[in-house]
Amino acid sequence: MGKEIKGEELMNKIVSLCKRRGFVYQGSEIYGGLANTWDYGPLGVELKRNVKEAWWKRVVRERDDVVGLDSAILMHPKTWEASGHLASFNDALIDCKVCKSRFRADHLIEEALEMDVEGKSEEEMTKIIKENEIKCPTCGNADWTDARAFNLMFKTFQGVVEDQSNVVYLRPETAQGIFVNFKNVVDTCRVKLPFGIAQIGKAFRNEITPGNFIFRTREFEQMELEFFVRPGEDEEWFEYWREFAMNWFIELGVSSERLKFYDHPKEKLSHYSKATTDLIFHFPFGWEELWGIANRTDFDLSAHIEHSGKKLTYYDPQTKEHIVPYVIEPSLGVDRAMLAFLVDAYSEDEVEGQTRVYLDFHPELAPIKVAVLPLTKKDSLKELAMKIYNRLKKLYNAEYDEGGSIGKRYRRQDEIGTPYCITVDFESLDDQMVTVRDRNTLEQDRIAIDQVEQYLRDKLGF
Amino acid sequence: MGKEIKGEELMNKIVSLCKRRGFVYQGSEIYGGLANTWDYGPLGVELKRNVKEAWWKRVVRERDDVVGLDSAILMHPKTWEASGHLASFNDALIDCKVCKSRFRADHLIEEALEMDVEGKSEEEMTKIIKENEIKCPTCGNADWTDARAFNLMFKTFQGVVEDQSNVVYLRPETAQGIFVNFKNVVDTCRVKLPFGIAQIGKAFRNEITPGNFIFRTREFEQMELEFFVRPGEDEEWFEYWREFAMNWFIELGVSSERLKFYDHPKEKLSHYSKATTDLIFHFPFGWEELWGIANRTDFDLSAHIEHSGKKLTYYDPQTKEHIVPYVIEPSLGVDRAMLAFLVDAYSEDEVEGQTRVYLDFHPELAPIKVAVLPLTKKDSLKELAMKIYNRLKKLYNAEYDEGGSIGKRYRRQDEIGTPYCITVDFESLDDQMVTVRDRNTLEQDRIAIDQVEQYLRDKLGF
Repeated sequence: MGKEIKGEELMNKIVSLCKRRGFVYQGSEIYGGLANTWDYGPLGVELKRNVKEAWWKRVVRERDDVVGLDSAILMHPKTWEASGHLASFNDALIDCKVCKSRFRADHLIEEALEMDVEGKSEEEMTKIIKENEIKCPTCGNADWTDARAFNLMFKTFQGVVEDQSNVVYLRPETAQGIFVNFKNVVDTCRVKLPFGIAQIGKAFRNEITPGNFIFRTREFEQMELEFFVRPGEDEEWFEYWREFAMNWFIELGVSSERLKFYDHPKEKLSHYSKATTDLIFHFPFGWEELWGIANRTDFDLSAHIEHSGKKLTYYDPQTKEHIVPYVIEPSLGVDRAMLAFLVDAYSEDEVEGQTRVYLDFHPELAPIKVAVLPLTKKDSLKELAMKIYNRLKKLYNAEYDEGGSIGKRYRRQDEIGTPYCITVDFESLDDQMVTVRDRNTLEQDRIAIDQVEQYLRDKLGF
Repeated sequence: MGKEIKGEELMNKIVSLCKRRGFVYQGSEIYGGLANTWDYGPLGVELKRNVKEAWWKRVVRERDDVVGLDSAILMHPKTWEASGHLASFNDALIDCKVCKSRFRADHLIEEALEMDVEGKSEEEMTKIIKENEIKCPTCGNADWTDARAFNLMFKTFQGVVEDQSNVVYLRPETAQGIFVNFKNVVDTCRVKLPFGIAQIGKAFRNEITPGNFIFRTREFEQMELEFFVRPGEDEEWFEYWREFAMNWFIELGVSSERLKFYDHPKEKLSHYSKATTDLIFHFPFGWEELWGIANRTDFDLSAHIEHSGKKLTYYDPQTKEHIVPYVIEPSLGVDRAMLAFLVDAYSEDEVEGQTRVYLDFHPELAPIKVAVLPLTKKDSLKELAMKIYNRLKKLYNAEYDEGGSIGKRYRRQDEIGTPYCITVDFESLDDQMVTVRDRNTLEQDRIAIDQVEQYLRDKLGF
């Protein structure tokens, strides 16, 4: 149903709707913004809460083999030594000697030569740029410094002295908070292999080129699971979580045409990974990673064993052996998941000769589940509408709206993705019935007021 | 009921229980810890989620006059210029010239002279320390540097160059994210005075002396509300939120003897405040601030108007005037609220000659609402218990536990604060009834299996 809108036009419409309806504002906007930070407004925060809740419910609450965790953003610097982030979580940057512009060396090469440089060192990239006399996109000269590594972790100082001994980093991923607590969880929570530890929390990466709205930001929120398994059972669990990721989005209403898997070729895998699949999504700016599923083997636990000297093992009562489990990591960004839901939900159709915009959110994700609208502000209608609203808001995130024409109020609820509107009209006073309007089909059902809860429960599914 | 345990003994018992049962672990523990960071384990994260949910429900969801927000931790530095944090969010530090130890000047004076120095400048404090020849607590000498201001904001660099133009700060409070979005919310969410904007999120303060477990940490989570009102209506709303704070804790089961108000004397108020009350709590280490309620007048909005040049006003349709509202700010720390709930819940009694430890959590806060325990691991009992568990876990955060003696399993559920345990015994197979045990009273009810949901709903209240 409706027109197909794509690419930049779709993106612009989504960004504009997000601002207009209070989903997403530019961060620090009154001060001209702070490069690519975003603030979630009253509806955005509810959508975000629902996305996180939908993940936590299916990954933690409903499962007997996963527990939760909430570890600190500030971690001991040795964590990043062990994880490899201090040594190799870098972008290679190169400067034009003429105009002083700075670029990511890999982007420069990819754009000029259409050549894939993944895994190449700074030296190799410098050589390619110089040998091919790649021109500076800003000034057109080809006079370059050498490329050098730039670490993507945000650095700060804890305590009163700003010296090297007090440096701490904002975590670039939540995963390491799970690994360093592996033994604590094993010792205190009677978990048995296979089991997972899940965490939702902020992470920070000092990206040189963040962008595409909330898709890639320096400050972002992750939903990560580390699922520990016996070595040898890792491949089947990798398959399991790969399917889980796809199904999670489909169950929450995302159309399967927008989703597919990208399996990383063996030769391009990160040093810690035996296999990596990205669940990719068709964003308006192309197919991009949504959910990364990696078979990290025992890389992380082994690295922390080596760097901490602690015995981060699991005693297997079946084999009476202490083992270092393998781990499967499904890692999803909250912000980009939100963007995927927004993109997939954005819809336009023609109603009475006019373009109508609506967000086709799954009811579980919709910030507001039901709106109660008196046809006019007349006292008698208002009173009845408020009575219904006060009952419903105990069950659902509901809204009462009496301002403006009914058509305008419908349009607003459509644009914020509210699945059902309940209209109280003058007949309602006599027949004790109301009209329930469906956001997608625009069909209207006339329902007895005392049946409204049951009607919604059936339609919403909760 | 039970023994009274106080002070350090109580604190030690809570810290130990939190570690033992997976509520709170030391941050980065395998690397020797990172000064006063804490990680919430599988039960801690559920308790934390419940505390935040209990706040969000009563402050945002159930109210028609409050909306939510989730703004970025990284904000434009001008924010902190406007808020006054850059100029005056400082501790005065002083160094012993002999042994090089560093101290907070105010603590030094307070301890040596029992003198209150709130509001005094670095110069004044230096004078007091030198004139009174206060001795260094470390080496006993009295040879001091001058006291100097140390800003408590964590500083980092955004982008590729570590220079002044790229400095950003980790927000020291969530409140300013609300003020800078005031106009966005007014323009896009049809709010009408009085109304509030609420936010839950991380904040960071580079405290010189954090401590008392999760009470004061450098990284912490806040639940802040900025409630905007017409000037002239501020005092009554201040009273309203003061009472609200007290009632929130009491409604969630905290004993009123542990709570009282501390009204800041007029002469000691912060520069932005017309009135401040702390809801204080009787922690094992003394009466300390839990929830601060401040009448901030129009200080913040006016400061941002001045620094941004933007018109952060509200058009009042009643008076047809553009006004700068006053604001009442109730501000509560998630971590210290959790500690208060833990302290209040910690209980011991004597059962059959043995000391029993239990956490008397309000059911809304308890990480696990109900545990299902088969008397033995026998297949038939296990099958029936799993059937009951699988039904209950759709409704509540439930646990199934078959390991160890029934007494040991009860003790574990008591220690983690589970309100009800359901025991499936051999008779259950015949009479289709189970025993429901109450955590606090230890009373056991024999209930038909098909009545368990209703029984729990009545007892738990949800």
